[in-house]
Amino acid sequence: MNQPLTHFDAQGQAHMVDVGSKDITHRVAVASGHIRMQPATLALITSGTAKKGDVLGIARIAAIQGAKRTADLVPLCHPLPITRVAVEFHVDEAGSTVQVVATVETVGRTGVEMEALTAVQVGLLTIYDMCKAADRGMVMGEIRVLEKHGGKSGDWSVTR
Amino acid sequence: MNQPLTHFDAQGQAHMVDVGSKDITHRVAVASGHIRMQPATLALITSGTAKKGDVLGIARIAAIQGAKRTADLVPLCHPLPITRVAVEFHVDEAGSTVQVVATVETVGRTGVEMEALTAVQVGLLTIYDMCKAADRGMVMGEIRVLEKHGGKSGDWSVTR
Amino acid sequence: MNQPLTHFDAQGQAHMVDVGSKDITHRVAVASGHIRMQPATLALITSGTAKKGDVLGIARIAAIQGAKRTADLVPLCHPLPITRVAVEFHVDEAGSTVQVVATVETVGRTGVEMEALTAVQVGLLTIYDMCKAADRGMVMGEIRVLEKHGGKSGDWSVTR
Amino acid sequence: MNQPLTHFDAQGQAHMVDVGSKDITHRVAVASGHIRMQPATLALITSGTAKKGDVLGIARIAAIQGAKRTADLVPLCHPLPITRVAVEFHVDEAGSTVQVVATVETVGRTGVEMEALTAVQVGLLTIYDMCKAADRGMVMGEIRVLEKHGGKSGDWSVTR
Amino acid sequence: MNQPLTHFDAQGQAHMVDVGSKDITHRVAVASGHIRMQPATLALITSGTAKKGDVLGIARIAAIQGAKRTADLVPLCHPLPITRVAVEFHVDEAGSTVQVVATVETVGRTGVEMEALTAVQVGLLTIYDMCKAADRGMVMGEIRVLEKHGGKSGDWSVTR
Amino acid sequence: MNQPLTHFDAQGQAHMVDVGSKDITHRVAVASGHIRMQPATLALITSGTAKKGDVLGIARIAAIQGAKRTADLVPLCHPLPITRVAVEFHVDEAGSTVQVVATVETVGRTGVEMEALTAVQVGLLTIYDMCKAADRGMVMGEIRVLEKHGGKSGDWSVTR
Repeated sequence: MNQPLTHFDAQGQAHMVDVGSKDITHRVAVASGHIRMQPATLALITSGTAKKGDVLGIARIAAIQGAKRTADLVPLCHPLPITRVAVEFHVDEAGSTVQVVATVETVGRTGVEMEALTAVQVGLLTIYDMCKAADRGMVMGEIRVLEKHGGKSGDWSVTR
Repeated sequence: MNQPLTHFDAQGQAHMVDVGSKDITHRVAVASGHIRMQPATLALITSGTAKKGDVLGIARIAAIQGAKRTADLVPLCHPLPITRVAVEFHVDEAGSTVQVVATVETVGRTGVEMEALTAVQVGLLTIYDMCKAADRGMVMGEIRVLEKHGGKSGDWSVTR
Repeated sequence: MNQPLTHFDAQGQAHMVDVGSKDITHRVAVASGHIRMQPATLALITSGTAKKGDVLGIARIAAIQGAKRTADLVPLCHPLPITRVAVEFHVDEAGSTVQVVATVETVGRTGVEMEALTAVQVGLLTIYDMCKAADRGMVMGEIRVLEKHGGKSGDWSVTR
Repeated sequence: MNQPLTHFDAQGQAHMVDVGSKDITHRVAVASGHIRMQPATLALITSGTAKKGDVLGIARIAAIQGAKRTADLVPLCHPLPITRVAVEFHVDEAGSTVQVVATVETVGRTGVEMEALTAVQVGLLTIYDMCKAADRGMVMGEIRVLEKHGGKSGDWSVTR
Repeated sequence: MNQPLTHFDAQGQAHMVDVGSKDITHRVAVASGHIRMQPATLALITSGTAKKGDVLGIARIAAIQGAKRTADLVPLCHPLPITRVAVEFHVDEAGSTVQVVATVETVGRTGVEMEALTAVQVGLLTIYDMCKAADRGMVMGEIRVLEKHGGKSGDWSVTR
Repeated sequence: MNQPLTHFDAQGQAHMVDVGSKDITHRVAVASGHIRMQPATLALITSGTAKKGDVLGIARIAAIQGAKRTADLVPLCHPLPITRVAVEFHVDEAGSTVQVVATVETVGRTGVEMEALTAVQVGLLTIYDMCKAADRGMVMGEIRVLEKHGGKSGDWSVTR
């Protein structure tokens, strides 16, 4: 029987998959997610960025550092030489959310979706942490891979 | 002017808040989140748990370890002596999701919401990682604090 | 005089050896070790794996993660892009031991014996941790490299 | 049914055990292990310690740092405020081994056996690493807890 | 003979000093250091802080996180429950330097000088990193403890 | 307008710079720094190295390990496969200082100045830690890059 979950061998034992014979190619992944909060909380962030307390600047740094910790956090991830991380925030005042979009690149043997997702998660956690004194009910969601390029499976993007 | 974002001082500079004079009390936080996937992917997880490839068992370990990494990941979090971590998974076949619920406890000077949320995020990331070969379009969401106890602010729980 | 301990220079000062001019080749190392326990403890593990409490599944994850921490733990080890880790357990009921066998691969400039040994040690420590409430007298031993392939020194295996 | 493996709950799910209600007491653990090598390799270590290349001095530092990493490596270990680590080496020329003995202390809610064992394992790995160019067949063994004091279970020592 | 270097025992072996019987008290340490650069480089930082590229905001976050890594970096440091970290920057246009001042507090058994110094060092390294494309010749200096309070040795401050 | 601080994009947002298209070349960086202390403290170090308590041997190990932690500490640094680290100490009795010189090499896409500087900083911090019971007023300084080789910018060395 075929094992569609590649992180398990034929006996169902977890392993770190062999990527030694995969090609070294340029690989890119983009992931995003958002955090929904009270409008008053969002106002603290948006005014803060301009003058007092740069929540998003700090969350960006945490997200970039988070990408570098991926293989430490996700048990079966391969360590990867990340060559670029960029993190953007989009404030949606109508929906009262901040969206995080992380782009990670490598020139390596395996993809960087997990690094991009980890950057998003750590960025969101940091926003939560910095605003939680004002708003404990914030909710994080819509965390997903948006697109990926490079490697044998080629280009993929979410159907929107 | 009052600064409602406690992670910033009066000049808007980030700092790790002084908790030295807060009481050492028993503190609990519960957080949850879910990951939505194709029904066929969910079937791989549920059958795997029983016999081949224990996705949720591995995600539980990653979540517990993730809780211990919180202060490494979230810049302004205090290091905390965690005294308990428990992680449960609830499979919702109708909604085609797996929900992660993490409970973290400490006897310390500050709360453990961030530790509980980090456990949830790392648990979700690990499920994504292990199933991504079968289903790249999985989406993580509804990540929030459900309840918290202990400390000066007392009990709080999400209004459901 | 020749310095047979390559981790020291001619003055006896420790250094991280220069591997910059070594070839990038496919390298494999296999290491093993075992933990000896009371037969009743072993029975808890073997029955647990089947239904309650998967000690070996958790030890496998810890071992794989341990391999990734090798350069953090062993001062003069080079950081290496691990391309595969697999960990097997063999239960020997007659000898009342569990044997851990770890295989680590890279495509890099230096070998992965230390990564394989670290995986074994962390796997054994995790078994000890999970069973210590039942049996404090467990003993770990026979921890060694079994074989290695690739690199200038070529193939090597223990004489058995 | 009673679950003798305390790291699992009644459903067999792994958790980090609740130690929040355990007393804060002074706790000590002593662990040891050895590495067996060619007599010529041992001679390199013993002469080196005196004048060129202090293998044991470096292994001692690695062992002390390893003790601080225990909760990172062993999934269900609690983070602990270590208050003392001491590491001794005993060279046995007759048996051609180096024995590592690590003593770890804390004033906390749970014992430090795992910290002492981790110190031993990392100390042994470091000796292996530094001597492996001269002797690949070294074997580590007899790794065990020798004694422990403090906490509800009181004093325990191995029967020798 | 008395051993004035407390990190060594009577045989000259390094150890992590026993602090188990020291009192838990409120302890504070303040450390500082500066980085000297070309006036044009300093101008990039000072204009950047206001509108494009917040070098000092990022260095502050790195410094705070660095304080939490002290026991990982400095081999014989005890892990400590930091209760506060604050980091200030002072731009000296006449001297063409940026000074970093870090204040760290704990309620614990040992002082936090090393945490304050590590925060300073990591803050300085981050400024260097962010400006090095413009100015490779920057020099870091005057890194020292300014004052410390708490513990048996009481108050101490540098003679200025 | 040109952005001379490459760690920021055109909007002034921090990012980890794209190095994916840079050539893989052999790169070397040398950095140094010193710590100034009381002559009596320096005498403890120099006599200790010979017989009791090897301060500099321990600082060397910490410096080498510090180089490996650079990308963990400095937010926008790329993870790099270090191929060599060497650390030397020069005792200047006239100036009552110990100088640390760290040389780091890689075969990679970006330079290793930050790794060399981090090695120096961690080496200096470790000396401070080990001597602080005798001399709290030690001052670290003159920390800089001395030379760098490889990569598009070619050779550079400090003008002395």
